[in-house]
Amino acid sequence: MMRELIEELFLPALKGECACLGSDDSAVLSLAEFSGGRLALTTDTYVVSPVFFPGGNIGDLAVNGTVNDLSMAGARPLYLTAGFVVEEGFPVADLAKILDSMKKAADRADVMIVAGDTKVVEHGKADGIFINTAGAGMVPAGLDITARGLKPGDVLIVSGTIGDHGMAVLSKREGLDFESDIKSDSAPLNGLVADMIAAGDINALRDPTRGGLASTLVEFASESGVGIVIDESSLPVREPVRGACEILGLDPLYVANEGKLVASVPRAAAKTVLAAMRKNAVGRESTIIGEVVAEPAGKVLMKTIIGGTRLVDMLSGEQLPRIC
Amino acid sequence: MMRELIEELFLPALKGECACLGSDDSAVLSLAEFSGGRLALTTDTYVVSPVFFPGGNIGDLAVNGTVNDLSMAGARPLYLTAGFVVEEGFPVADLAKILDSMKKAADRADVMIVAGDTKVVEHGKADGIFINTAGAGMVPAGLDITARGLKPGDVLIVSGTIGDHGMAVLSKREGLDFESDIKSDSAPLNGLVADMIAAGDINALRDPTRGGLASTLVEFASESGVGIVIDESSLPVREPVRGACEILGLDPLYVANEGKLVASVPRAAAKTVLAAMRKNAVGRESTIIGEVVAEPAGKVLMKTIIGGTRLVDMLSGEQLPRIC
Repeated sequence: MMRELIEELFLPALKGECACLGSDDSAVLSLAEFSGGRLALTTDTYVVSPVFFPGGNIGDLAVNGTVNDLSMAGARPLYLTAGFVVEEGFPVADLAKILDSMKKAADRADVMIVAGDTKVVEHGKADGIFINTAGAGMVPAGLDITARGLKPGDVLIVSGTIGDHGMAVLSKREGLDFESDIKSDSAPLNGLVADMIAAGDINALRDPTRGGLASTLVEFASESGVGIVIDESSLPVREPVRGACEILGLDPLYVANEGKLVASVPRAAAKTVLAAMRKNAVGRESTIIGEVVAEPAGKVLMKTIIGGTRLVDMLSGEQLPRIC
Repeated sequence: MMRELIEELFLPALKGECACLGSDDSAVLSLAEFSGGRLALTTDTYVVSPVFFPGGNIGDLAVNGTVNDLSMAGARPLYLTAGFVVEEGFPVADLAKILDSMKKAADRADVMIVAGDTKVVEHGKADGIFINTAGAGMVPAGLDITARGLKPGDVLIVSGTIGDHGMAVLSKREGLDFESDIKSDSAPLNGLVADMIAAGDINALRDPTRGGLASTLVEFASESGVGIVIDESSLPVREPVRGACEILGLDPLYVANEGKLVASVPRAAAKTVLAAMRKNAVGRESTIIGEVVAEPAGKVLMKTIIGGTRLVDMLSGEQLPRIC
C-alpha cells in the first residue's frame, strides 16, 4: 500500500512539471539547448538518522546534495531521479512531509525529478527511509572545473560557516539541548556556482560534505599535487557549533556541510569572485581561508590561532555515521 | 571499513574503463556522437531477497534491470550510476561477488558505471545490501518508442518464457526443492532492441518485471486506449516454472521477468521483427502471443486453453515482495 501511495500519489506530484513524463520507466528529455556540452552524472544515497533535523530533512538533503555534486563539476543541474527504500510502518505523514520537501527543494534549485522508484521492505529490514538521488546536468562547452585544478598562487575561498549540518544532525540524534541553536546548512549551490563562473576564473570546486573541510582540502592537495596553507583564525564557525563540537570532542574542520563549497581561484580573480559570492544569499559569509603553494606538495598546513603551524590530515578515526 | 573497501577497492574496478573519471563526485561525459538525440534517464533500487538466487544475484540484476528500462524507451544505454546501502557485517566475500557480477553485466551490456556511492548502516538497519542503479542513455533522433504506442492491428510479441525470474527468487527464498530447475532470466535487452529496431517498425516496448506479463498488457491497453487479445496456448512457460506456480498457487502471467520484453509491432513488420529477435541469443524463444484490437478499449482478453475467453486484470492481491 505504501508503494502504491508513493507511486500513484507522490511521484506524479514530484514529477508534475515535466509534461514529457508518462508511466514509462525512463524519462526521455531533449538536450537541444546544450549543444556541444558534456553530460555530468552523479549519485548519492541518503541514510541520515534522524530523518528530520533542524534546518531540513532527508528529502531536501537528497535533492540539495545531488544538485551540489553536479554543480561542483561546473554542470548546470537539470534532472534528478529518486529511488526510495521505505520500511513498512514508516508514518505516511512523515513520508508526505519528506516528499513535499523534495518538491520544494527541486523547485528552489530549478531541477526536475524525472524518474522514480519505490521499494517497501519489511519492518526491521531498513531504518525508516533511505533515498537515492542520481542527477544529470550539462557542463557548458569550454568549461573544465574539477577537484584537481588547484594551482600555486590560487586563493581558497569557503562559501560560509562550517560544521552546521553535521552538528545539527548529531545534536538532534543525541537529544542535546543546544539543538535549537544549530541548523543544517542544507542548500542548493548551483546558483552560487553560476554567479562565480560569471564573475571570474575558477580552478577547482568541491563541497565539503562527509569528512568536512579538512578532508576536502587534503584531497585537493593530494590530487592536484600542490600544498595548501590555511589560517585557523579565518575559518568561519558559528558559536553554537563551536560549543557543541567542544562538548562532543569534535573538530569542526571534520564535520559535514551540505550547503557550502570551497573554491580555488586565481589570485587575480579572487576579489571579483568573492564579491559575487557575497551577493548571493547562500554565499553571504564567503571568506578567504588560505592559499595554494607549490611546496610541500600534497600537504595541508594550518597556521593556528596560537601562532604555530600544524599539519591537517584526513580524519584518522571513524567518520560520524549516517550524517547524510 | 566496509565503505572504504567499496570506495577504494571496488568502485575503481567497476569504473575502470572510463578514463574520464577521477575522484570527483560527478562523472563528466561527452555526448558529441549523439547529436540531435534525446537523453533517457531511469532509476531502480534493488532489494531482492535472497541476494543470490539461481541464475544471478542482486548485482547483475541491478545492472540488467536499469539497462532494460532504458532500452524500453528505445534508448541506447550508455552510463549507469550505482548507490549502495550495506548493512554492517555483510560478508565482504559476498560483496566482492556482487561487484564482480555488476562489472561483468556492465561489460556484457556495453555500459559504463561512471559514478558510485556507498553508505554503511548499523547491523539490523538494512537487510544485507540494497543497490540503486540509475541509468542514462541516448534515444536516436527520430525514434519514438513508448508504452503508449499500441495501435489496433499490431501483433504482440514476447521475447521468451515468462515467470522464470520471480519463481527462481521465490524458490530459493522458500527453500523449495525445484529450485535447481528454475533459473532467473536476468539479462540485458539492449542488443535485442537494437536488432528489432534495425529489422522493422516497433510501436511499443516494455519489460514485464514487477506484476509480470499481465500487468504490462493491462497498462499497455489502458495507456494506449486499445484492446488486447492474447491466446493462452501461445504463452511460453517452462515446465518447472509452471509446476512451481501450481504448487504455490501463483499464475505465471503475474510473476516477474528480468530479461524479457513485450513488443507491439505493426502486422506488416511482425515477421521480419520476429525473425530478427529469434536470431538474438536472448530472443531465441520469441513468439507471437496476441494482437491489438480497437474494442474493448482498455481491456485485455485471453482466449483460454479450454476454449473460453476471460478478462485479464491487474493483480488484485499483494505483489510478491522483494523479487527485484
